[in-house]
Amino acid sequence: MKTKRATAKDVAELVGCSVSAVSLVVSGRTEGRINNDLRDRIEAAVQELDYRPNQSARTLATRSPSNIAFVCPDIRNPFFGEVFHGLSASVAAQYRVQLRVPSSGLDFGIDVVRDAQSENIAGLILAAPSSGVMELFRSTCPTVLLEAPDQTLGLPCVDLNLESAAKGLAQHLLAMGHRRVGYLSYQPKKGTFVVRRHHLEVAMQEGGAHLLDAIASAGELTIEEGEARFFESWKHWKENGVTAVVAADDILAYGAIRAAKKAGLHIPGQLSVAGFNDIPFSALIAPPLTSVDFRAYELGQAAGAAMINTINGRATNLTVVETELHLRASTGAATPLKGPKRRASGTSSAPAV
Amino acid sequence: MKTKRATAKDVAELVGCSVSAVSLVVSGRTEGRINNDLRDRIEAAVQELDYRPNQSARTLATRSPSNIAFVCPDIRNPFFGEVFHGLSASVAAQYRVQLRVPSSGLDFGIDVVRDAQSENIAGLILAAPSSGVMELFRSTCPTVLLEAPDQTLGLPCVDLNLESAAKGLAQHLLAMGHRRVGYLSYQPKKGTFVVRRHHLEVAMQEGGAHLLDAIASAGELTIEEGEARFFESWKHWKENGVTAVVAADDILAYGAIRAAKKAGLHIPGQLSVAGFNDIPFSALIAPPLTSVDFRAYELGQAAGAAMINTINGRATNLTVVETELHLRASTGAATPLKGPKRRASGTSSAPAV
Repeated sequence: MKTKRATAKDVAELVGCSVSAVSLVVSGRTEGRINNDLRDRIEAAVQELDYRPNQSARTLATRSPSNIAFVCPDIRNPFFGEVFHGLSASVAAQYRVQLRVPSSGLDFGIDVVRDAQSENIAGLILAAPSSGVMELFRSTCPTVLLEAPDQTLGLPCVDLNLESAAKGLAQHLLAMGHRRVGYLSYQPKKGTFVVRRHHLEVAMQEGGAHLLDAIASAGELTIEEGEARFFESWKHWKENGVTAVVAADDILAYGAIRAAKKAGLHIPGQLSVAGFNDIPFSALIAPPLTSVDFRAYELGQAAGAAMINTINGRATNLTVVETELHLRASTGAATPLKGPKRRASGTSSAPAV
Repeated sequence: MKTKRATAKDVAELVGCSVSAVSLVVSGRTEGRINNDLRDRIEAAVQELDYRPNQSARTLATRSPSNIAFVCPDIRNPFFGEVFHGLSASVAAQYRVQLRVPSSGLDFGIDVVRDAQSENIAGLILAAPSSGVMELFRSTCPTVLLEAPDQTLGLPCVDLNLESAAKGLAQHLLAMGHRRVGYLSYQPKKGTFVVRRHHLEVAMQEGGAHLLDAIASAGELTIEEGEARFFESWKHWKENGVTAVVAADDILAYGAIRAAKKAGLHIPGQLSVAGFNDIPFSALIAPPLTSVDFRAYELGQAAGAAMINTINGRATNLTVVETELHLRASTGAATPLKGPKRRASGTSSAPAV
């Protein structure tokens, strides 16, 4: 089932004219070059054969790039879909956004970036690029980095205020009495993940508390990975008095919650769990997840604005998008697992009927 | 901040050779055409200037399409990310998958499809295309339709067994005593949504029950839309004795649950809620959602297999992927809202302390 597509040559043969005459008509450049009669006959033939010029050829010929390439990691995380929507909306008047994701694998390598660069694009946005990609990256067109707080290439950046995000979360946990906090990290080396862990650790230490890393980091941002890495680390964490777990992303936190429930732990009675990102599902899960809202749509809009400024030669070095901590039922007061279980005074100790 | 990229002309000027010699070296076609000394000098200049051939030009020149374009709607729904992963994995040995989504707006129009067709692609997959798109669609390369049960173009299709999915859900609701079921639909005219509602209605009617449509359909698959459409319809549904609500997609069901909770309804005590799709978050929300698993990854794999068969001239008309009903706590026995609340015998009527 393969239908052969009409070419400019087919149109030229039907009309009895040159291929370049067809090309001029199709691209609307007939003025002073093609007489009206020939133009009409070519247009009729284009319609009859349903000829559509090849986009690759047309792009090369006209050299008017109207696409912004948005390169992003694993789109199973609904976060990137939301960023994409904000970005698309903010540049819609002038540009279309072309989404570029790794065909196989979970994160994009330099090949995906170079593929995007090899097209005739107006601009390039890299979302949460890994350190490996940034080491090999060379800018060939207006470029904006999104969530790349470790980058020093001097490119315009749009970042989250991760310091205030992590600090807010740390202060909440400290106020709830948590002094040993397990950290479920994401393995790929990316600035945004390095920085969120760093600020959380610093803030916890300032409050006299400690971060205990999971035995292994998650290789993918999936519920299954979060669950597996929690199970692996729980014995170690428990022995060290961990009363709360923070995950590098909400989806890993969902896995931690699932694992903790399977292990018979009451959340937040015996273990508090929190995440970063606050994707829309975090308010709906059981228990609702305490998380730092990364305002994905707004982040996309900011990336669009920075891109347009960059294209127009008014580059801004850094745009910072504020985050917001949402406290929900997954975090509560620390209750050490060892020793007798504390009870709030005035509560009957008789079992509930 | 714009870095000019080196062109083949720059390389040719540096070496003192023709542009076509550069092109031959870059594409590895030197044999018998370019002597080794010139080849080495060109290669050195390519490296020095960091010249990378333009992909559009190279694709046109070599005519060896290795991309399959996957056109899909709103990627905020994690379903499509999962389908994409299954698809990419299944064709990875031979093809890369290029994701094409609407730049603005929520669903793709014919323009997105034609853009994809105008590139030099090996094949095209359309996911859940609207009736409007299919009316204007003309195949120009090997094409596979995914979730397009209403299509009659004779193109290879990969579909879900929606009849068995809807029937299973209807039988479950009937067995639980539900006779009036609200239906929260998705507005865009798409075969997959028409068919899932149709089979549910037929199966409910066979059991002597009725489907009552929401006052308005959701324009987007978002939690907010599900919530708003539920609120709008609840008075009408309540007056007509509705004891269960089915949503066309899990994300709308999440909105219905949020709205029902805000309206003070106990789920499933006073209202059962179910969805279609069973995205990974449905098992985690409160209460866990009864849903029909659409096996997104498997669906993507089946689309990849159908695509490769089609490219190789072994087109299969239709591949059907089975679905699976997952019963969870969001559905329970029907309890009419009017009249005295029934209690299970043996349960104390004293209020809980």
